[in-house]
Amino acid sequence: MSAITLYEHPLSGNCYKVRLLLALLGLDYQSEQVDILKGASQTAEFKQMNPRGQIPVLRDGEALIWDSMAILVYLARRYGGDAWRPSDALGEAQVMQWLALSENELLYGLARARAVKVLGRPFDLAQCQAEGHAGLGVLEGRLQESEWLIGERPTIADIACYPYVRLAPMGEVSLEGYPAVRSWMARLEALPAFVPFD
Amino acid sequence: MSAITLYEHPLSGNCYKVRLLLALLGLDYQSEQVDILKGASQTAEFKQMNPRGQIPVLRDGEALIWDSMAILVYLARRYGGDAWRPSDALGEAQVMQWLALSENELLYGLARARAVKVLGRPFDLAQCQAEGHAGLGVLEGRLQESEWLIGERPTIADIACYPYVRLAPMGEVSLEGYPAVRSWMARLEALPAFVPFD
Repeated sequence: MSAITLYEHPLSGNCYKVRLLLALLGLDYQSEQVDILKGASQTAEFKQMNPRGQIPVLRDGEALIWDSMAILVYLARRYGGDAWRPSDALGEAQVMQWLALSENELLYGLARARAVKVLGRPFDLAQCQAEGHAGLGVLEGRLQESEWLIGERPTIADIACYPYVRLAPMGEVSLEGYPAVRSWMARLEALPAFVPFD
Repeated sequence: MSAITLYEHPLSGNCYKVRLLLALLGLDYQSEQVDILKGASQTAEFKQMNPRGQIPVLRDGEALIWDSMAILVYLARRYGGDAWRPSDALGEAQVMQWLALSENELLYGLARARAVKVLGRPFDLAQCQAEGHAGLGVLEGRLQESEWLIGERPTIADIACYPYVRLAPMGEVSLEGYPAVRSWMARLEALPAFVPFD
């Protein structure tokens, strides 16, 4: 039995970020499904694990970590050394820039636009789509000059940004105008051990 | 002349996070004002520095870093060793959890509610206030059991969360119901070298 348990749901792009890194690191884990559509992340019991009432949550032995960004940072360092996350101050900051984009324009833009269309959530669709396009424009600019978001190899920056970009069309955000982004997605999908969203 | 330049605006809580850490680290820097209210962060020239068209941006010699979270991560490691940011995988992840809260509930909740009231920005005030209260509830729970967000000393987790909590009343989000949060703010404000928002 693996020491790692991931509390997750198949519809969540944030959980998929963690599944993807676990696969790329070649780590075994147990999946614990949390039925967020039925409120299973809002129970007192679940909030003991994550006071925000959100998935993903990762348990690794004694360690309990909530938030996809925190989990990526943890797994990359704990099991990947420097391979998925540089350890010098500037390299770390560069990764962090793209994690910030993933938590802002991509999450509040692309992921929320998808949540409006797929889950009927009450966000302003046009505003979410506009924020999503702003984020995609920044990615496109970067990826026109670089194969990966940080230099010459994939890092957790790419893993954090990929899922909600991949799922953007479900929120009626077209990737047509972003050819460098589409090439980058194809490169990521061609990595050995890559696992798709579904 | 200092090697560090901070591109900033006095109204920005995200810029203040960086000013606060610079002060706590005892670092000299030059301030370059960017008149965001007149569109100075949206020019082609500024977007050469930060394609997102946002402040803060930090220049440190050759290094150019955008995003407040990335800048905090950089400065803490480059100039603070482990003092403001633990360097083990789990400690890093714990800091990252609170950086995530600061980029989500606090930014999209508290900061946006303030932006509606102060700058007339077109966000849904009630939704922002509700998200802000959700974030405050999580902070309150943590701070009822711990003096600082990570263990026994202040870290960049505290610095990232403090500004938009401090400014929450400007978005008509009362801190009345959060006594542990208010005590934590007072502890932070009592640190030697603390600088206030204004």
